[in-house]
Amino acid sequence: VDLLARRAARLHPSLPQSPPSTNIAFDSGHASPLVLPDLTAEAARALTHFRPETLQYAPRPGLPELRAHIAELMREEGAPATVHQILVTNGAKHAIELACRLLLDEGDSIAVTAPTYFTSIPIFRSFGVHFIEVGQDEHGMLVGELAERLTSLAAKGERLPKFVYNVPDFHNPTSVTMSRERREALLDLAERYDMYIVEDSPYRRIRFEGESVPTIAGLDQHARVLYMGTFSKLMAPGLRVGWVAAAPQLIARMIQLKSDGGSCPLTQRIIVEFLNEGRLPTHVQRVQDTYRSNRDAMAAAITREIPEAAFHVPAGGYYLWLSLPEFVNGDELAAAANLSGVTIIAGSRFYAGGAARRHQIRVAYSHATHDEIDEGVKRLASAYRSLFADAVSGARA
Amino acid sequence: VDLLARRAARLHPSLPQSPPSTNIAFDSGHASPLVLPDLTAEAARALTHFRPETLQYAPRPGLPELRAHIAELMREEGAPATVHQILVTNGAKHAIELACRLLLDEGDSIAVTAPTYFTSIPIFRSFGVHFIEVGQDEHGMLVGELAERLTSLAAKGERLPKFVYNVPDFHNPTSVTMSRERREALLDLAERYDMYIVEDSPYRRIRFEGESVPTIAGLDQHARVLYMGTFSKLMAPGLRVGWVAAAPQLIARMIQLKSDGGSCPLTQRIIVEFLNEGRLPTHVQRVQDTYRSNRDAMAAAITREIPEAAFHVPAGGYYLWLSLPEFVNGDELAAAANLSGVTIIAGSRFYAGGAARRHQIRVAYSHATHDEIDEGVKRLASAYRSLFADAVSGARA
Repeated sequence: VDLLARRAARLHPSLPQSPPSTNIAFDSGHASPLVLPDLTAEAARALTHFRPETLQYAPRPGLPELRAHIAELMREEGAPATVHQILVTNGAKHAIELACRLLLDEGDSIAVTAPTYFTSIPIFRSFGVHFIEVGQDEHGMLVGELAERLTSLAAKGERLPKFVYNVPDFHNPTSVTMSRERREALLDLAERYDMYIVEDSPYRRIRFEGESVPTIAGLDQHARVLYMGTFSKLMAPGLRVGWVAAAPQLIARMIQLKSDGGSCPLTQRIIVEFLNEGRLPTHVQRVQDTYRSNRDAMAAAITREIPEAAFHVPAGGYYLWLSLPEFVNGDELAAAANLSGVTIIAGSRFYAGGAARRHQIRVAYSHATHDEIDEGVKRLASAYRSLFADAVSGARA
Repeated sequence: VDLLARRAARLHPSLPQSPPSTNIAFDSGHASPLVLPDLTAEAARALTHFRPETLQYAPRPGLPELRAHIAELMREEGAPATVHQILVTNGAKHAIELACRLLLDEGDSIAVTAPTYFTSIPIFRSFGVHFIEVGQDEHGMLVGELAERLTSLAAKGERLPKFVYNVPDFHNPTSVTMSRERREALLDLAERYDMYIVEDSPYRRIRFEGESVPTIAGLDQHARVLYMGTFSKLMAPGLRVGWVAAAPQLIARMIQLKSDGGSCPLTQRIIVEFLNEGRLPTHVQRVQDTYRSNRDAMAAAITREIPEAAFHVPAGGYYLWLSLPEFVNGDELAAAANLSGVTIIAGSRFYAGGAARRHQIRVAYSHATHDEIDEGVKRLASAYRSLFADAVSGARA
């Protein structure tokens, strides 16, 4: 192994194996290196016994066995599906893009929370959508506020949103979980105003405590929901395998739109083998344990180092969403933190309506070790204090 | 291994490991099972030594080492490129889609050969393009005919095509290779009418004899070419890794449009390891030998069984393009052949302008064994003779 690595390094001496940065990364949705599974046995079987399957083109909807496994995962989420309701995608972002291609025309609008998942924003923008931004509280999206906006749009004869996009479980970036009442109210609105709901739920099974709320898909009586799942958080991001679960006629049309020659059958087969062996539950348990402990470490470090940061302690997911005093400019803080050796994401980047000044930041606890969490939060606190020294001492006085 | 396969089969008894069809497949661009490489060692290294790379998100443009290898492949094709001119994609079809997202607006037109690669047609259609179809002869696209069409459009003040799409090496479906003179003339037209050229060249290295013609990208003086390559034909389709090589500013914009979370780092690393070990040249040699022999077997079988089929013997690629007597309806023949146990593709499907009746069919020799080629051509001849019995005997009389 090392011989080959050295040979590779000799061939391309200028190319390091990993980014050269010594920054501690609180910015990414990367998995903890501690929970990356050993998939060598699965890959060996996939490339020997299943070679005629894994090295040829795959069926465009996905491997039949993987679709069956995903249908079973959906059943466990209270949203039973047939394989005809499942489309395997190149990760959940690809699923979002296919939903846009399916549902959107130029000039359409969609409804999103403010803040919302920042990687989805440029995907939506590339389809030329207008955003209707709706606030959130500790019970998730303010569906009452959305209802008022829709009533007003309808009264003015303006175009209603084609769909509502949300991350209802451990929301990115706020980590809030939407209550059952809000989910039901959202479904009522979708039916009344003829909208779809894109339920993007990568973190749902990364729950540390408490009871799950039913999926919106599971509460859906009218085939209004396109549910998006992914193996990125359940197994590993590098597999690039996600899915959409939706009504068969929507899936049939999305299969036509999926013009990529089928998703990679090798990674699909590796996942099927992992699931066939029953490795998923123990692996997810390990992920939960690791991230629960990381969350505790980061919550403690923030409370200790930046006591003026307000945050909700998430019951799952990857992120703390920190509200700092109003004099803080999150963009300036992110830039200063980066120079101080810790990478975070400024809150402004999560607002689809534009990059207004925001006093929030998102810090991910998923990727770092406990030592890195402690050291990274110290660096963040130091950047914060030096940048806002006068205001900080004023606020503390 | 078998135990696990049986367990999988027990879990999903209704799901066969492979399609149940006993048809001989002359319809697909699948690789021959004889030339699917053994990638188990590469995968084992990728999932152990490189695990932190292969199971996390990859850089969106592709792994740096793979981009460097692809730049070297481009240099070998006479079109030197820096890594900033290379974008790794989820197969070449994904590259075509990204080129469309980069270059096309609703109502634009593009120029294609008639016939052209049939899988590209729905991708182009999904962007709402109008097609300008241009004929071909044994030297490839009739660039003179394209020049006349462009002159006429310009004279009428009509919109000119945004790009010309072509498969200049071992064209799909005709297997014709475009001459150097036509390539140069096409580049002149592109410069004169401010068009791009999408050079889609999956089969270029699958050459059985004779000398390569320079790539259009290699002759390009004005950064007019987006070159599309793929490891599907060089290694295996299931890897789902292709690339675009183009001007750095075009690549930078395509990276922004590539909203899939990065292509799969696991399959990228497997390819890098394969290339680092120097396995590509011997593997490509084996592919060439296998497909040359398959081509010879199919050409002989067609000449023996359906002597009235006219075809050009390709110097590379995957396909024979058969012109049958004019009374033959290729759609009817494809349907009858399917019932007789051999799957082919009707020529009409390769015409972007619509499914007019055509007397051509495409048969792929890449996937079948020699025995399957002989048996499949017999079945095809039998379908042909029973369907067109009266006309056939008339034509032979």
